[in-house]
Amino acid sequence: MARFFAMPGNGDLTDEISVLTASETGTIEYRRFPDSESYVRIHGDVRKGDTFLVCTLAHPDEHFVPLVFAARALRAAGARSISLIAPYLAYMRQDRAFAANEAVSSRIFADLISREFDRLITVDPHLHRIASLQEIYSIPTTVVHTSGLIGRWVRDHVASPIILGPDIESAQWAKNIARNASCPWAVFRKERRGDREVQLIPPSLDQHAMRTPVLVDDIISSGATMIQAAMILMAADMLPPYCIAVHALCDERTAAEIEGLAQSLLTSDSIPNPHSAFSVAPLIAEQLAGVTT
Amino acid sequence: MARFFAMPGNGDLTDEISVLTASETGTIEYRRFPDSESYVRIHGDVRKGDTFLVCTLAHPDEHFVPLVFAARALRAAGARSISLIAPYLAYMRQDRAFAANEAVSSRIFADLISREFDRLITVDPHLHRIASLQEIYSIPTTVVHTSGLIGRWVRDHVASPIILGPDIESAQWAKNIARNASCPWAVFRKERRGDREVQLIPPSLDQHAMRTPVLVDDIISSGATMIQAAMILMAADMLPPYCIAVHALCDERTAAEIEGLAQSLLTSDSIPNPHSAFSVAPLIAEQLAGVTT
Repeated sequence: MARFFAMPGNGDLTDEISVLTASETGTIEYRRFPDSESYVRIHGDVRKGDTFLVCTLAHPDEHFVPLVFAARALRAAGARSISLIAPYLAYMRQDRAFAANEAVSSRIFADLISREFDRLITVDPHLHRIASLQEIYSIPTTVVHTSGLIGRWVRDHVASPIILGPDIESAQWAKNIARNASCPWAVFRKERRGDREVQLIPPSLDQHAMRTPVLVDDIISSGATMIQAAMILMAADMLPPYCIAVHALCDERTAAEIEGLAQSLLTSDSIPNPHSAFSVAPLIAEQLAGVTT
Repeated sequence: MARFFAMPGNGDLTDEISVLTASETGTIEYRRFPDSESYVRIHGDVRKGDTFLVCTLAHPDEHFVPLVFAARALRAAGARSISLIAPYLAYMRQDRAFAANEAVSSRIFADLISREFDRLITVDPHLHRIASLQEIYSIPTTVVHTSGLIGRWVRDHVASPIILGPDIESAQWAKNIARNASCPWAVFRKERRGDREVQLIPPSLDQHAMRTPVLVDDIISSGATMIQAAMILMAADMLPPYCIAVHALCDERTAAEIEGLAQSLLTSDSIPNPHSAFSVAPLIAEQLAGVTT
């Protein structure tokens, strides 16, 4: 019997996955001492069992050490295996040194995680120059995809949609969502203007003028891309867009700014937030079905 | 030639040590992305050289991942050795499981550090049940002691002092300070009252009524011990104490509260703070003298 453990803040998703997989949960007791050091204790019999630790990795630096403490405590308590379920996976941007002597955080973080866990399950990681997590993770990895879930939501809720990805790299993903939504798709292009500034160039939308734009992106962080795209659509007299992202890394102020420009802002619950409309729990449970019985 | 690198916030101490050891410094470029991930880049030629990374470990969770990034970047850049100078060493309290399935953070953290560095240099670590850092660290460790520095400061600045340690475990340390200050010493006793409450029992101070009490402790964290001791002395009509701690883990509010009860609050600069009156740089430089030439 598998047993699921939630790191602080991951309780809802953990409960949902354990119900869907008919598995048990244990508890991680967590507190910080006055000097900010972490205290971790696990409750629940894990001897010779397979365990799943659920910890989304937004704000990874502050969560890493307690996560290791939990993993080591599970190991010390006799767990046969410890899988990390990280609905949002951090440090997927810097996958090589762009300048001399930069820390390649993507590979280093992958190594740190690979040392502590037997397996990684995550949702739509931000793969850019690398094709697969296996290029940087030395443990087995399982990737859960949300394009079906998002596509079906769009199909059921948006009349005459068009899926719009933020850049050329998102083409395949936008296409997958569009296929599930049975609608057309297109992507913006990103043009770098100087060191930091990025200008979005919209696709030709003339033949889609009456469609409802659905802006999709894997991550909303600063919100700059989503906001710029929404403003371009507004200037082109399109209908207000639906803005859909998998991982809501942004703060509430950014989310509110996007909502002000959109028909609606929707995200998954990979990072718990007030706009989460899609749960990744069923997708994760489905992937685990073969493992947890 | 050795080269010293400061993690953010450790620049003053790093500069001081490098001047005292006639060594060079490099730079660690550090920033956080909007999503809170850390960016680290090192500047300075480290090929085939011995490097020293200075990072005090107050608030260890948030500092650990960037510290690893810096160490790995130094390694990738060709450093022959990487020593960690952690003037304050974290996670020295939980050195065993007091209840079933607790994470033994002391050993786990020691293992994490030992994997990344070739050597650890620290100042007066909070050794309690373990006798030596080598019981938990698998790399060579060097411990710098402040009792001489503190004792000499007391001798030069306090008329007719008596050194007072907070508990029986501090007896040896208080005695060392007193020897350097050429004055008497004594210790309080700690009595547990229930789960959290600790009552300090003062030593007999009748024969020392006219002396200036000097309360010494290795760490000020919540400040509870120092405050309780100072109030006991006040109730006993002793002179207001000097309060001296090596590691100032406390916030400014706590420091102000202690200052209100004391003649003066003094700490080392192992954790930079407004009350630091003793620099540990000369002590560290002295220890390194044999290594960095």
